[in-house]
Amino acid sequence: MNIIDIIIKKAKKGELSKEEIEYFVNGYTKDIIPDYQMSSLLMAILLNGMTNDETVYLTKAMLDSGAKNDLSKIKGVTVDKHSTGGVGDKTTLVLAPLVASCGLVMAKMSGRGLGHTGGTIDKLESIPNMKTSLSPDEFFKQVNEIGLAVIGQTSELVPADKKMYALRDVTGTVDSMPLIASSIISKKLASGSQIIELDVKYGDGAFMKTKEDATKLANLMIYVGKRLNKEIKAVISDMNEPLGYAIGNSLEVIESIDTLKGKGPKDLEDLCLHICAEFLVAAKLYDDYDKAKEYARHQLLSGAALNKFKEFVKYQGGDVRCVDDYSYFKQPLYHYDIKAVKSGTIKIVKALQIGHASMLLGGGRQTKDDVIDMSAGIVLKAKRNDKVNKGDVIATLYSDKKLTKEVEDLVVTAFIYQ
Amino acid sequence: MNIIDIIIKKAKKGELSKEEIEYFVNGYTKDIIPDYQMSSLLMAILLNGMTNDETVYLTKAMLDSGAKNDLSKIKGVTVDKHSTGGVGDKTTLVLAPLVASCGLVMAKMSGRGLGHTGGTIDKLESIPNMKTSLSPDEFFKQVNEIGLAVIGQTSELVPADKKMYALRDVTGTVDSMPLIASSIISKKLASGSQIIELDVKYGDGAFMKTKEDATKLANLMIYVGKRLNKEIKAVISDMNEPLGYAIGNSLEVIESIDTLKGKGPKDLEDLCLHICAEFLVAAKLYDDYDKAKEYARHQLLSGAALNKFKEFVKYQGGDVRCVDDYSYFKQPLYHYDIKAVKSGTIKIVKALQIGHASMLLGGGRQTKDDVIDMSAGIVLKAKRNDKVNKGDVIATLYSDKKLTKEVEDLVVTAFIYQ
Repeated sequence: MNIIDIIIKKAKKGELSKEEIEYFVNGYTKDIIPDYQMSSLLMAILLNGMTNDETVYLTKAMLDSGAKNDLSKIKGVTVDKHSTGGVGDKTTLVLAPLVASCGLVMAKMSGRGLGHTGGTIDKLESIPNMKTSLSPDEFFKQVNEIGLAVIGQTSELVPADKKMYALRDVTGTVDSMPLIASSIISKKLASGSQIIELDVKYGDGAFMKTKEDATKLANLMIYVGKRLNKEIKAVISDMNEPLGYAIGNSLEVIESIDTLKGKGPKDLEDLCLHICAEFLVAAKLYDDYDKAKEYARHQLLSGAALNKFKEFVKYQGGDVRCVDDYSYFKQPLYHYDIKAVKSGTIKIVKALQIGHASMLLGGGRQTKDDVIDMSAGIVLKAKRNDKVNKGDVIATLYSDKKLTKEVEDLVVTAFIYQ
Repeated sequence: MNIIDIIIKKAKKGELSKEEIEYFVNGYTKDIIPDYQMSSLLMAILLNGMTNDETVYLTKAMLDSGAKNDLSKIKGVTVDKHSTGGVGDKTTLVLAPLVASCGLVMAKMSGRGLGHTGGTIDKLESIPNMKTSLSPDEFFKQVNEIGLAVIGQTSELVPADKKMYALRDVTGTVDSMPLIASSIISKKLASGSQIIELDVKYGDGAFMKTKEDATKLANLMIYVGKRLNKEIKAVISDMNEPLGYAIGNSLEVIESIDTLKGKGPKDLEDLCLHICAEFLVAAKLYDDYDKAKEYARHQLLSGAALNKFKEFVKYQGGDVRCVDDYSYFKQPLYHYDIKAVKSGTIKIVKALQIGHASMLLGGGRQTKDDVIDMSAGIVLKAKRNDKVNKGDVIATLYSDKKLTKEVEDLVVTAFIYQ
C-alpha cells in the first residue's frame, strides 16, 4: 500500500477501504507518513467527503491508535456528555453534579480552551486550589464515593486524533463532517462511559453554522456509534448567542453555581435538565422522559445537585467557601460597563464576537502557551428579545488589562437590534 | 495576510487575488510557509481549479521567484521547445541540430528523467565524454558559433517550481491543469528564448490522457503566455505509443542519429519537421508553412542537420566517432528477444508499460538517486497497424541485468492486437 495512491484515490472521489484507512491512520500516528502527505489527504477528504462506511473505519482506526479508558471498576451507570464547543458553554459544570445527585456516575475527562471557546478544565481551575489531575486510584475512589470526577484529558487516548487535529487546525481542514465526527466519536468511545450524549451546537459561535448541518453531524455521529456498538444520544442546541449570560472562567463557574442554586439562566437550566433526563431514561432509571425531567428538576431545586457540587470541589481540593461567597474567587483589577448605543429590542448578541472579546480581555488563549486570567470575561445584561433604552448597561467587562477600542467595538457591535 | 485563510478561501471555491497568490508562492519559496500547508492548498487547487486570471498570477509569481536567463548576448532568433513528457520522446535530439542548421538558435536547458519518462540530459550523457554543464561563457560562445547548445537546467531558475513540483510529486497533486501550465510556462519564460513551441502529449504514456485535455492544456498555456507578453505555439501529439521504436538512453540517441541521416521513424521525423517549420514561420524567415517545412526537410536530407549534430557533440566534448559507428556507445551485457504470442495486426503498443519496463531494465530512475544504465532499454520491432506472425520478434530488450518475469510480462502485454 502506498500513501500517494490513497491520496489520488480520494482526490478522484474514490471510496477508501478499511485497510487503506487503517494504513494512513497508523502510518501518520507512528510518524511514518509525513504531515505534508496527510494534509493533502485531509484536504481531499474535506472536499470530496467520506461515505458512512469510510467514516466508521476512520473512527475505529483512530480509536485503536491508543489506549482506552477502563471504567469497569466503577459502580453504577457511567454517563458522559460532549459539546461541540461554544461561547459561555458551562453545561458540564451544572450537569455533572446534577446527574451524580440523580444516582448516575460522571467520570469525565475534559479539555482546555483555545480561541473563542472555553474549556471545562480551565473553568474548574478558577476555583482556588482545585486539582484537575488525579492519579487513577484517586480518580476511581472519588468516582465510587461521590459519583463524580472531572479531570484533564490524559494524552494517551486517541493519539491519532491529537496529531490529526493539530494538523487540521493549521491546514484549513477543520470544517469536514466525517473528520469532525470521527474525531469526537473516537475520543468518546475511548473515554469508556456507557451512555454518551452529544450536545451539537449550531450558529454563529459554533463549528456548524446551521441547524440543518448540526442535525446532519449529529445523525452521522449516532450512526457511527451504532456501527461501533455504542448507543449515542444527541441534542441540537442554539449557539447564535452565548449560553447563559457569563463568559469567562470564574464568571462561568459563578453562573453555574447560581444555576445549581435554582437561580440560573433559563437556557442553561433547560439544557442541563434535558440532558439529565435523557441520561436517566437511557440508563433505564426512568421509562418516561417527562418524569425523568421532573426528578432532575427536583434534584436541582432541592439543593441536592448543589451539595454534590460542594462534595466534588472538596474532593478535588478546591476551596469550597467560594460556593457561598464569590469573593473567594480571584477578582479582576478593572470592570467596564458597556452601554446601549440606542433604544430598541435586541435581536441577537453574536456569540463569536463576544467569545473573541472575552479572549482578548484575558479570559482565553490565542495560542496554546497563553496564560489565562481566571477573572477576565464578560457578563451580558441583555440578550435576544430584551428591550433596552439608550444608555442602559448591556454588558460588563472584567479584566486586569486596560480596555482597548478593539474589545469595546467587538462587544458593542455584537449587539444586533431588531 | 494568512495562509490558513487562503487555503480555506480556495477550499470554498473562492478566487484568489494576485496578492494572495504572490504571498503563498513567495512564502513557500522562502521556507516561511511549511510543506504541510502548501500541500493542503495544492490539493484544494487540484480539486477546485483556478480561473485563468489565477493561473496567470501564479505563473508570474513563480517566474519572479528566481533569476531569468538573459539570452540577449546571443546573435539570431532563439527558439525553445518543451515536451510535456513521453516514452521514447527524443524530439530535442533531432530538432535542436535541425533548427540550428536552418539558421535559428537553440540555447536549451533541459531536465533529467524520472519514472517512465526519459530526460534529454541523460540521453546526451550516453554519448561518451559528452559534457552537459558549461560555464556561462562557454555556453554563449558555443551558441554564437554553432547556434546550438543543450545543457542541464541550472537550479536558480524558478525555485518556486522546483520546490512545488517536488511536493506535488509526493502529495498526489500533479494532475492539475493550472499547476501543470504555470510550472511549464514559468520555466519557459525564465529560460529566455524568443519563440517557444510546446509539444503537448496525450495518451497512455502522458500526463493528459485524452486529446481534448491536451488541447485544453495547450490553450491554457498559450493564453497565459499571451497575458505575459510571450507568443507561444503548441503542437498536440499522440503518446499512446512510444515515439519512434527506441526507448532507453543510447538507443534513443542512435535512433535520433538515424533520423538525422534520413532513415528514422516517420512519426519522429514528421514531428521534428513540423515544429521546425513552425519556428521558421514564427521567426519570419518564411511566410509560408509548407515552404518552411520543405526547407527543413532539405536540411535534414542534405546532411546539414547531421553535420550540425556532429559540431554540437564535438563542442560539448563528446566522442564524435559514435555518430558513424554505434559500437562506440556502451554496450549492454545481454539482449533478449520478445516474440509475438499470436499472429495478427497490432492495435497499439502501450507506451506507459514500455516506459516502465525500460526503467526496470536500468534505463530510467525509480528514485532521484538511481544510476542509469545508458545502454539499457527496448527497441520495438512492431507498432500500430503492423502485421505479425506468432513467433516473430516484436521487441528486443537490452540490459546488464537478467530478464525478470515482471519485465517480460510488461512488454508482452503492452502489445495489444486488433
